[in-house]
Amino acid sequence: MNNHIRPFVTLVGAGPGDAELITLKGIKAIASADVILYDALVNDELLAYAKKSCTKIYVGKRAERPSTSQDYINKLMVDYALTHGHVVRLKGGDPFVFGRGGEELDYVRKFNIPTAVVPGISSSIGLTGLQQIPLTYRGISESFWVITGSTTDGKLSEDLYQAVKTNATVVVLMGYSKLQKIIELYEINGKGDLPIALIQNGSLPNEKVVVGTMNTILEQVQQHMLGVPAIIVIGEVVAKHKEFKILKSEIQKLEAQ
Amino acid sequence: MNNHIRPFVTLVGAGPGDAELITLKGIKAIASADVILYDALVNDELLAYAKKSCTKIYVGKRAERPSTSQDYINKLMVDYALTHGHVVRLKGGDPFVFGRGGEELDYVRKFNIPTAVVPGISSSIGLTGLQQIPLTYRGISESFWVITGSTTDGKLSEDLYQAVKTNATVVVLMGYSKLQKIIELYEINGKGDLPIALIQNGSLPNEKVVVGTMNTILEQVQQHMLGVPAIIVIGEVVAKHKEFKILKSEIQKLEAQ
Repeated sequence: MNNHIRPFVTLVGAGPGDAELITLKGIKAIASADVILYDALVNDELLAYAKKSCTKIYVGKRAERPSTSQDYINKLMVDYALTHGHVVRLKGGDPFVFGRGGEELDYVRKFNIPTAVVPGISSSIGLTGLQQIPLTYRGISESFWVITGSTTDGKLSEDLYQAVKTNATVVVLMGYSKLQKIIELYEINGKGDLPIALIQNGSLPNEKVVVGTMNTILEQVQQHMLGVPAIIVIGEVVAKHKEFKILKSEIQKLEAQ
Repeated sequence: MNNHIRPFVTLVGAGPGDAELITLKGIKAIASADVILYDALVNDELLAYAKKSCTKIYVGKRAERPSTSQDYINKLMVDYALTHGHVVRLKGGDPFVFGRGGEELDYVRKFNIPTAVVPGISSSIGLTGLQQIPLTYRGISESFWVITGSTTDGKLSEDLYQAVKTNATVVVLMGYSKLQKIIELYEINGKGDLPIALIQNGSLPNEKVVVGTMNTILEQVQQHMLGVPAIIVIGEVVAKHKEFKILKSEIQKLEAQ
């Protein structure tokens, strides 16, 4: 091992898609990296901030892949830190919002390698913000609850069964494949009229947004051929979205006929 | 009114404190602003990105002040957009996380002034991230719930009474004055051993962090003379903080004596 090497690992949140939604601190970390390990949902344009000698390695994996690939990424981080110095682990959104950043830090620390974290814009806050859906609003919602749709056992998160009984704005990440189950859960709880939005490829040129209610959204999702990756936003605040107003006026028109 | 003026209002999230925790998109918005209306918790250094001719107005207010000041800010936004062009409303954290950004947009839209939103790093995600407290962690927490400690009626948010019964990581913003009530709520629910952290002036040079359990935290807060602004983080994931480990080893040492 080279004596001049100072092993260091920084987890950096790349933001929700748009390359301009990374922080200055994130760019500085990329610029000082000797090695970058980057994920599938990270915007490639961000790699241009790296120095010429930086080794860039794609470690894209999807939640569905076996956990061995996470072990492999953990080992890569440590190996490269020891042999190359500063490793930036560049992750979509924020490193700690379902990014397994905590597990990665735990692994790296076992080797007494110092670590840092640069937070990123989570899609839960960023993509709703860009769509001008306020997560909180006085008199409507005093909180928001961000829940994974992709649990280890493949079932709906127990947290969703509790969330449905609250007034919190709920954001479900990686939950597209559970959409029908989520809708059923809300309908069983008498919330078929609750507004819901889906945002696919948020903040990117191919972004698709669908806004409706629990009772209408499935048809709209099919009409607009939505797919993954998508986030789900649930709550009265979704009615603040500009297309929801159009929807309301269309319903009123239909009722007036 | 000048015919060349194109009224436009952009809500921009300035991030949790550190001037490097704003996004590139946020900086670009500031650089193109004709007028900036900025809050108390916004880092002054960010104003240096504005063009020389930009009018910068401090509209700092605290949650405790009467709502008239919000009306005043609303009017300023519209007046300046109509007379000067691009108004950037620069807000601490993210504009829609208890930032009243939704109300501001609703007001501006009444005047048919186009709007945009640039999300920011919310202190709920950013300050916990910098402290290397993972909001979610496989096998520990499948969700996080961000709740205001400052409700209109001055009481604890109803959402907190529900949150205490879940496994969600809970982040309370603007809740420092309710700390004792929150601790009582968790203790009544048999969660006196649950880890909790407070972060004051997060990401700034004068940052203070206190980590403990519901049963111990109040004494620690007094010892370290914590104050506002501070965020409260509650959940098993807080035990991942490096100082919590020291705490555990100290308890073990005491028990061994």
